[in-house]
Amino acid sequence: MDADLERLGRRATAAARVLATTRTGAKDAALHAAADLLASRADELLAANDADVRAGEAQGMAATALDRLRLDGPRVAAMADGLRAVAALEDPVGEVVAGWVRPNGLRVAQVRVPLGVVGIIYENRPNVTSDAAALCLKSGNATILRGSSTALSSNRAVVALLRKAMAGAGLPEDAVQLVEDTSRDGAVAFMQLPALDCLIPRGGPSLIESVRANATVPTVIDGDGNCHVYVDAAADLDMAVAIIVNAKTQRPSVCNAAESLLVHRDVAAELLPRAAEALAGVALVGDARARSLVPGMGEATEEDFATEFLDLKLSVAVVDDLGAAVDHIARYGSGHSEAIVTGDLRAAERFVEEVDAAAVLVNASTRFVDGGELGLGAEIGISTQKLHARGPMGLRALTSVKYVVRGDGQVRS
Amino acid sequence: MDADLERLGRRATAAARVLATTRTGAKDAALHAAADLLASRADELLAANDADVRAGEAQGMAATALDRLRLDGPRVAAMADGLRAVAALEDPVGEVVAGWVRPNGLRVAQVRVPLGVVGIIYENRPNVTSDAAALCLKSGNATILRGSSTALSSNRAVVALLRKAMAGAGLPEDAVQLVEDTSRDGAVAFMQLPALDCLIPRGGPSLIESVRANATVPTVIDGDGNCHVYVDAAADLDMAVAIIVNAKTQRPSVCNAAESLLVHRDVAAELLPRAAEALAGVALVGDARARSLVPGMGEATEEDFATEFLDLKLSVAVVDDLGAAVDHIARYGSGHSEAIVTGDLRAAERFVEEVDAAAVLVNASTRFVDGGELGLGAEIGISTQKLHARGPMGLRALTSVKYVVRGDGQVRS
Repeated sequence: MDADLERLGRRATAAARVLATTRTGAKDAALHAAADLLASRADELLAANDADVRAGEAQGMAATALDRLRLDGPRVAAMADGLRAVAALEDPVGEVVAGWVRPNGLRVAQVRVPLGVVGIIYENRPNVTSDAAALCLKSGNATILRGSSTALSSNRAVVALLRKAMAGAGLPEDAVQLVEDTSRDGAVAFMQLPALDCLIPRGGPSLIESVRANATVPTVIDGDGNCHVYVDAAADLDMAVAIIVNAKTQRPSVCNAAESLLVHRDVAAELLPRAAEALAGVALVGDARARSLVPGMGEATEEDFATEFLDLKLSVAVVDDLGAAVDHIARYGSGHSEAIVTGDLRAAERFVEEVDAAAVLVNASTRFVDGGELGLGAEIGISTQKLHARGPMGLRALTSVKYVVRGDGQVRS
Repeated sequence: MDADLERLGRRATAAARVLATTRTGAKDAALHAAADLLASRADELLAANDADVRAGEAQGMAATALDRLRLDGPRVAAMADGLRAVAALEDPVGEVVAGWVRPNGLRVAQVRVPLGVVGIIYENRPNVTSDAAALCLKSGNATILRGSSTALSSNRAVVALLRKAMAGAGLPEDAVQLVEDTSRDGAVAFMQLPALDCLIPRGGPSLIESVRANATVPTVIDGDGNCHVYVDAAADLDMAVAIIVNAKTQRPSVCNAAESLLVHRDVAAELLPRAAEALAGVALVGDARARSLVPGMGEATEEDFATEFLDLKLSVAVVDDLGAAVDHIARYGSGHSEAIVTGDLRAAERFVEEVDAAAVLVNASTRFVDGGELGLGAEIGISTQKLHARGPMGLRALTSVKYVVRGDGQVRS
């Protein structure tokens, strides 16, 4: 094990012990101090970021990657606002999740506590650095951040300001630490750092795959979204078209955008031509029945139905009934967000019960599956695994529970 | 990936889809049918077990291992009773964990759903086969069981009866499957089977270590218990002695037994001689201050303080104050169960807040940290990790949640 990484781990563990009993007011004060520092020292941050951006340009980084990397005045202001928004959220630590009394008089409670040390491994967006650190701090955790090499200068600057704010507010600086080794071997070592109570990867499929293969610490995976909209026989077709258009086109590059449209055969002839017209500019690929109803629609391959396009492209299939739609989703879906449009109560209830996904929606766009939209206040990611947290993850996803048992001398017989 | 294992995975996934929407009554009927079969066909089971026991004897298996492996009439009856007890528990599936309405009218709920496919990897106790399968079935999961090679004949017999009961009750036989390949390579392949939504190891440190190193699927670790009893300055010393004796000696071989006694220096001179007398038959090893108060006490090494003895042995240390006790526990504890004996409210509250463990107890024996004693009805294990479940795990630990979002045509702007 790498000595530098081990040292980060020991420092984080020590900081986590302090943070576990730090009152909400002190955590909020540190977050506000950090927001003020980001605002007042934005120039330093922009200079550090500029070095990353220029290095990226020199290395021929793609325009979209450069855009994610680049900070400017409004983006730094948004980072500061993000810190203040987290300060305004309710502190989950100490919540009594459940409690009861045993026949022998033992009083049992499950109380919410921080996870301890949370590792975040992510790609080149510097705003993740402040967002993730803030959510971890508010939930009483120490954070170890590992961003990409291409954003190292920016991340150093952000973390330096966050640590300064911690110290100023009387909290341990080591509440927030940055991994300086951004090599591939370093990434694998980080995924195996015993001090991590939880590792959350935020990035594309290759990062997720590396975490699955290499991590030996507990992880929460924020995976793909191959999301479907199913239009049932009993759908209001105006509503269906509006939901399809919104789910596909409102922001095609994100995980909760729809990638596939399934239509009940009884309404396909009416719906599909209308949907195709409303989806002008979206590349449609479909099965034989869909193509027969929409002139010019391309042929969908097996691969298309299994693909998260993250683009203005949509696969389309006509299905015989709700059961066939559920089967299609079980086969091709990624367990993220799945929507049905229907006016039929039994169809809605069956879809909700039978579809296995982090979120199922009835008569609403898949785009609502997001921590902000669902009312969690902020999110650290969207889990597509079933263990620990599933779907949008707010502050509670960064906590564990502790059994507290109070007696007056009970012993076991 | 091993073709046999992949086939088990596909069958389990298909069975899990059916079980996810199977009503409680059908699951309970299958459990009762399985209990009846275990009782009526105990002879077959005992014959199969006898083959394992004789092979174990021929291979020179240790007496304690043989005892864990051996079935007899009362043990088979207890397995059947265990199945009936699980049938009597409340079904966690469908519980609405939380729900709220968004300003745009979207109704959001988090609903409890099965995990899907649960893998259990364990050592040579055949009763784990029926217990684990029953808990997984009641919570709507398909199970793949992988016991030890030394119990293969017994496990085959148990699983055959369970599958017969499933089929008789109209449930998929593949709700319960057994891995026949009990090689070490087979174990590693099982820990990497993508169909597993969750893997739960039940066994000793070498199994846990192998799971940590090799598993690529989400796991819940049931780890060691290096549990402490701390006797505070304000303790009722009669109560303290009773709790120490119970925590250490009532069943020394289990994870919630105490392994270490910490005593505040102000009461050490009075408590330790009384405790030593009450602990006659227990090997005591202590630090210098403890040894000065108990003639004949051995010297405790660093290693002793870090060891889960699982035997009639106890390490003892005198501490200056509550903070030193908490520090000692943070350094040597395994995060399982930690108890304080005190009459002082502030000491109790500090201990509860500052000690990081799955369970903290005030004025009660560590032996209560168990699913049955805490009122969970039954347990699949005791988690010492912080992700997903912590402490004794009942049926809810075998579930996930699903967001259900109901609207009337909302789209995102």
